[in-house]
Amino acid sequence: MNTQSVLIVGTGLLGTSLALRLTDTWQVWLSDISPAAAALARDMGAGSLYDGKSVPDLVVVCAPPDVAGQCVVAAMRRYPSAVVTDVASVKQAVAKVVEEEAEDRTNYIGSHPMAGRERSGASAADRDLFEGCPWVLVPTKETSERALGLVRSVAVEVGAVPSQLSAPEHDQAVTLVSHVPQLVSSLLAGRLKDAPARAMSLAGQGLRDTTRIARSDAELWAAIVAHNSDAVAEVLEAFARDLAELRQGLAAGLPAGLSTPGRMGSVAKVMLAGNDGVERIPGKHGGAPRRYLEVSVLVPDKPGELGRLFTEIGEEQVNIEDFSLEHSAGAAAGVARLLVMPSVAQPLASALVRRGWQVPSAMNRGR
Amino acid sequence: MNTQSVLIVGTGLLGTSLALRLTDTWQVWLSDISPAAAALARDMGAGSLYDGKSVPDLVVVCAPPDVAGQCVVAAMRRYPSAVVTDVASVKQAVAKVVEEEAEDRTNYIGSHPMAGRERSGASAADRDLFEGCPWVLVPTKETSERALGLVRSVAVEVGAVPSQLSAPEHDQAVTLVSHVPQLVSSLLAGRLKDAPARAMSLAGQGLRDTTRIARSDAELWAAIVAHNSDAVAEVLEAFARDLAELRQGLAAGLPAGLSTPGRMGSVAKVMLAGNDGVERIPGKHGGAPRRYLEVSVLVPDKPGELGRLFTEIGEEQVNIEDFSLEHSAGAAAGVARLLVMPSVAQPLASALVRRGWQVPSAMNRGR
Repeated sequence: MNTQSVLIVGTGLLGTSLALRLTDTWQVWLSDISPAAAALARDMGAGSLYDGKSVPDLVVVCAPPDVAGQCVVAAMRRYPSAVVTDVASVKQAVAKVVEEEAEDRTNYIGSHPMAGRERSGASAADRDLFEGCPWVLVPTKETSERALGLVRSVAVEVGAVPSQLSAPEHDQAVTLVSHVPQLVSSLLAGRLKDAPARAMSLAGQGLRDTTRIARSDAELWAAIVAHNSDAVAEVLEAFARDLAELRQGLAAGLPAGLSTPGRMGSVAKVMLAGNDGVERIPGKHGGAPRRYLEVSVLVPDKPGELGRLFTEIGEEQVNIEDFSLEHSAGAAAGVARLLVMPSVAQPLASALVRRGWQVPSAMNRGR
Repeated sequence: MNTQSVLIVGTGLLGTSLALRLTDTWQVWLSDISPAAAALARDMGAGSLYDGKSVPDLVVVCAPPDVAGQCVVAAMRRYPSAVVTDVASVKQAVAKVVEEEAEDRTNYIGSHPMAGRERSGASAADRDLFEGCPWVLVPTKETSERALGLVRSVAVEVGAVPSQLSAPEHDQAVTLVSHVPQLVSSLLAGRLKDAPARAMSLAGQGLRDTTRIARSDAELWAAIVAHNSDAVAEVLEAFARDLAELRQGLAAGLPAGLSTPGRMGSVAKVMLAGNDGVERIPGKHGGAPRRYLEVSVLVPDKPGELGRLFTEIGEEQVNIEDFSLEHSAGAAAGVARLLVMPSVAQPLASALVRRGWQVPSAMNRGR
């Protein structure tokens, strides 16, 4: 079999990342509405500029959601033999354009590689961007087995984990796990705009974690949410209802404290629902949440200390399931939190103490 | 000078952690309304059970906010010569009880060590819990220099970073950086309670980060928020106003897409405000946000690989400012994101490539 060819339409973060990875085994052609963007991707080693004549086996439309549908239809008309997919974060809106405007729809399959970062553009591209990420395949009723199989093979080739959903299922799912968390994180971070500096100096890891994705690109997200606004509005309505109930419980104007009936209860209700909800997020290895144990180690803030720690963990033949480093302003040391399988937690803690590390006395259930 | 003595009232997470650390240099006495809890702390090496007779130099009330004020007043009456402080997360409510009920208030100073974790109780205690954390000193108008100095020295001794605020300033500051983020994270996680499993399987790092603190203790947070409800209600009111404006922009019932005026704009407004807000969170070393560059490295999911990575980084004499590990369901490798000073990013990336690591082509501005 000859080398297959792929035309990447749109050389932003996703398109260029995909192209970088596929150049190993595919003939990759690059095109973008901005010739400069396509040239940048080429110069990064992501393939060659499209000659405008060759016929690709596969077209991947990596354009924003507001134009993805039109780009897909144009590609289907121009290359009737090619499989055409897109990577937009909303799938019903794209499928609708295809259904209304394309004649033969067997070669189209929607897809959504759930990779990204707070930065955008070809310069942020990463050939390993898709490594381990979910890649949702979204066939229509008319999608051929050939189209489904080809895009699935691309997903596997770039290291992603393919799954399959209908377009409505997809849009509903990403509303809950992606679109609404993005908006809520941004709303929360927005409240910090005018916060006094003395408040910001008390910021800890909790605030950092809850607002990390508030750095995301405003224009891209506006297009994503606008194309999934019904589903987003529905979840935000429920969120607003919970918020209103909490605010009513807090009942501004009454004296603070426990004397006000319902105040404790309204907060506890929100907290307990949150406890339940967060338990539903699967762990690192997918499937049901797995319980790891946490071992905390004090790590001096100087070169080589993390290296020494991980070398010694490696010498103990222990696999770290998850890791985080906590530190605060002005500290001379950070606390490394290591999550490991329960069976190795105690031996690891003992070994680290023996090797001279400061390991807090208690081990706790980790995420 | 003789060894100073401290009475810890309440041997939960904070009290026991503090006691564990202070046993190096202080005579530590432990008491708790639950004799079993005090005995557990003693058995963890946190000090000796209080004999009911000795007079301490310092009393630290580590009780929940709903009883902290009464405990402080009781201690002040019983030990008129002792400095008395508390570690509750709300300060006006405690100060009010002291002002109303204590006779001589010069020995009282409020404090708030901003340390904690998603777990509670003596069994989760950690002698390094305060390492690098902010410790807010909250004197009243009557607090003596002796009381202020003694508690400041304790904060420094346990590795915390002391600062000073009035009680209203403190309560307003923690509302923005702690109480409201906690409630918003819990409200968001609460929406996942009834999410379809297919949605949860698409959960990524963004959702994990925004909901991590939703695991926190419901009862403790109910007491904290109930005692700061006016300030929390005020910020939640502004949050709800922003949310209502967004929901109005999304205008349920109208067709999705760009044809609806204002839809893109309402989302972009929320995103841009979030971009601005998150920029105000100080970096690791405090003060103004510092810009690090990010170097990403693919790390195979097996023992010793993180060790090898950090050893080699140590050999290059590079200090890692921040670190995170990203991975997804079923992945054979994670992506380590290293944040370093801009001057060393390019040399580090080159060195890692030379040593055979997979390092994505682009480097990005990190947090």
